[in-house]
Amino acid sequence: MTEMRTLKVALLGCGNVGAQVARILLEDADALAARAGARLQLSGIAVRNVNGHRDVELPQELFTTDAGTLVKDADLVIELMGGIEPARTLILSALQNGACVVTGNKALLAQDGPTLYEEADKAGVQLSYEAAVAGAIPILRPIRDSLSGDRITRVLGIVNGTTNFILDQMDSTGAQFADALAEAQRLGYAEADPTADVEGHDAAAKAAILASLSFHTRFALENVHCEGISAVTASDIAAAKDAGFVIKLLAIAEKLTGADGKEGVSVRVHPTLLPREHPLAAVRGAFNAVFIEAENAGELMFYGQGAGGTPTASAVMGDLVSAARRLVLGGPQRTETTTGHVPALPIEAATTSYYIGLDVADQPGVLARIAQLFAEHGVSIEIMRQTIHRDAESNVESAELRIVTHRASEAALAATVEAVKGLDVINSVTSVLRVEGV
Amino acid sequence: MTEMRTLKVALLGCGNVGAQVARILLEDADALAARAGARLQLSGIAVRNVNGHRDVELPQELFTTDAGTLVKDADLVIELMGGIEPARTLILSALQNGACVVTGNKALLAQDGPTLYEEADKAGVQLSYEAAVAGAIPILRPIRDSLSGDRITRVLGIVNGTTNFILDQMDSTGAQFADALAEAQRLGYAEADPTADVEGHDAAAKAAILASLSFHTRFALENVHCEGISAVTASDIAAAKDAGFVIKLLAIAEKLTGADGKEGVSVRVHPTLLPREHPLAAVRGAFNAVFIEAENAGELMFYGQGAGGTPTASAVMGDLVSAARRLVLGGPQRTETTTGHVPALPIEAATTSYYIGLDVADQPGVLARIAQLFAEHGVSIEIMRQTIHRDAESNVESAELRIVTHRASEAALAATVEAVKGLDVINSVTSVLRVEGV
Repeated sequence: MTEMRTLKVALLGCGNVGAQVARILLEDADALAARAGARLQLSGIAVRNVNGHRDVELPQELFTTDAGTLVKDADLVIELMGGIEPARTLILSALQNGACVVTGNKALLAQDGPTLYEEADKAGVQLSYEAAVAGAIPILRPIRDSLSGDRITRVLGIVNGTTNFILDQMDSTGAQFADALAEAQRLGYAEADPTADVEGHDAAAKAAILASLSFHTRFALENVHCEGISAVTASDIAAAKDAGFVIKLLAIAEKLTGADGKEGVSVRVHPTLLPREHPLAAVRGAFNAVFIEAENAGELMFYGQGAGGTPTASAVMGDLVSAARRLVLGGPQRTETTTGHVPALPIEAATTSYYIGLDVADQPGVLARIAQLFAEHGVSIEIMRQTIHRDAESNVESAELRIVTHRASEAALAATVEAVKGLDVINSVTSVLRVEGV
Repeated sequence: MTEMRTLKVALLGCGNVGAQVARILLEDADALAARAGARLQLSGIAVRNVNGHRDVELPQELFTTDAGTLVKDADLVIELMGGIEPARTLILSALQNGACVVTGNKALLAQDGPTLYEEADKAGVQLSYEAAVAGAIPILRPIRDSLSGDRITRVLGIVNGTTNFILDQMDSTGAQFADALAEAQRLGYAEADPTADVEGHDAAAKAAILASLSFHTRFALENVHCEGISAVTASDIAAAKDAGFVIKLLAIAEKLTGADGKEGVSVRVHPTLLPREHPLAAVRGAFNAVFIEAENAGELMFYGQGAGGTPTASAVMGDLVSAARRLVLGGPQRTETTTGHVPALPIEAATTSYYIGLDVADQPGVLARIAQLFAEHGVSIEIMRQTIHRDAESNVESAELRIVTHRASEAALAATVEAVKGLDVINSVTSVLRVEGV
């Protein structure tokens, strides 16, 4: 047997995920060498403070604050610092030096992915980022490789564990958003400043990456319409439950025909009602899942842990071993082929079903007037259900009307809701939520 | 832009899946060329009868009965004839000629995979077979690539749609096996001779392939312990349901420590009780799913259509485009690295929980005697539940005892059941079924 080659691996960042990656590289060295066909030698770990606290005990001599020098001497670079700079500069420098790069930096990819992909292409090296979307779940490689002979028509993803945990808590306990968020913070599922998660920014970055791979076109964060879950109320959840739905924050990318008759892709993140029988409805707690519809494959779902140091490290290691294998086998490294130029459609072009909750006067003829208004705006009603409440003290009756529409455009729906608000028999519009999977 | 290269694609077989592959190659030629970086030209379709019926209309001039000549001139060969010969000889000839081969032939891979893998290695070409396991679901590539830096500890798969449909029918309607099978045959989910499906042979071939990739060791069909579902009764299903379980035919591959203290892999197919909350329990009808437990990634599940011409063609096309991309990029093609030598363990070494149903005399002290017998054999009881029935006519009371054990070895369980049968208070052992996921 010939002597096995050694590849130098530089690790940038040693947080939650980075520390686990370092541990696996050191602990599983022999198994990894067998898989990769080369020894993967951790040549150093770049951190801001070499004496900082780590989740895992690691040899002190590996740590350095000089990321630039570490990168220059590496065959493979793992970037897990997060944020835009200095991650961006270091990745570009690694690619220019001919190193393959593995990153989990969704914010950077969503903001400046094209620059990085082009640099990797130019240098003929691999840039892999499985860990950037849905943690441990192998999803980017299946989309890129396994579905390369199919046409994806739609991707629906639960890609943020924090918001899924909060919505699941609200659904199972009836809690209000603020209480469920506090519980998520107490259990470590949500950060002290939860904005990036609850306002959907994290999911939006992942939506841009999923859309880019699924539709072979580069979509950036600015192409993603984004709504978070902070406005979802306990009564929205209760009404949805009562009607057989569950509310999930979905990252959606789907091919649609725009107003001009041309094909485009709608990329968006928003709270969405799903029928309880839908495979995504069963994704509980902080788990993630991505549901894909493709012309030939039909419906596929990928499920697993979307976050956490060890699960995410598994995705990083899969990219690393795959990149190392290619280096060992030789030949060009390019894997990315972004060939399409499908335009991103504005949110107004998206069509979905809608759930609308109305607090209406309990008078004869109200249903007919509302139904006619919907018809006039070209929005077709699928289900309409009225419930009468009588206040025990005042003895005043009020009626609650719940409507699920067929697929309609955002624009038509918005116009309908405006018109409905103008009716004298309407006390208030209690919720307007999009519905998928019906 | 430089002229795009053309790769010749030979298709062997034009059944259900083959016809769809041919259709996609012809219909989606431009999109496939963009994905692959080369035009994929269908050079011919080898069939037994050039005038046979096809599901899809295809140009008559593509058909030939001379598979040997077709293969000699191809860059890429797709084998979808099924069966051992002539598929085996044609694949070997293609590999020796330096063509990459894509196949969905699980029977051939399970019986003679090692010969084929070695030939592909020797020739430096790719042999891909995503379509052989779980139809459209991308599962082999994620195991091989995405999890290459992790350690899989266990794979549980619903990999046969026919048996899942039958068991799902029995579960939802209370039907007996024979009636559910007849319904499956009527709907086209089961063949006239359903042996390969219902006796678990099809699932066993897939189990061997899953185990080989998951544990980096070549397992053959003879290493797989196989039990089908023909002995599962409506009352087994009812009892399982009552206890909160669903019965699924699972393909299982898991790392265990054998009796000699050495690690090995148990590969087996058998009807298995799963708690209704387990993600696999929700896999209904003819759908397939593979549940993976890995040291770092934790729990993952892959779900989708396990059969059908179009879905399976999607998996074939994914392999084809990936192989073509590699040909275009150049460099060595080898992707398989089977490096481990973990022994296959006999079924006696497997440990699972068990569900045991007993028809017992309704006498005081019966529970205690049975519990003691279990304890004497080292089998620990987790749940024991007794139900008393009174026959309305005879007024005779009988008791039904349901036991779920903790994990025990097959050997210990078999000895316990033998001993229990010898007790005078036992009328009969009504079911003995393995349990996973508790």
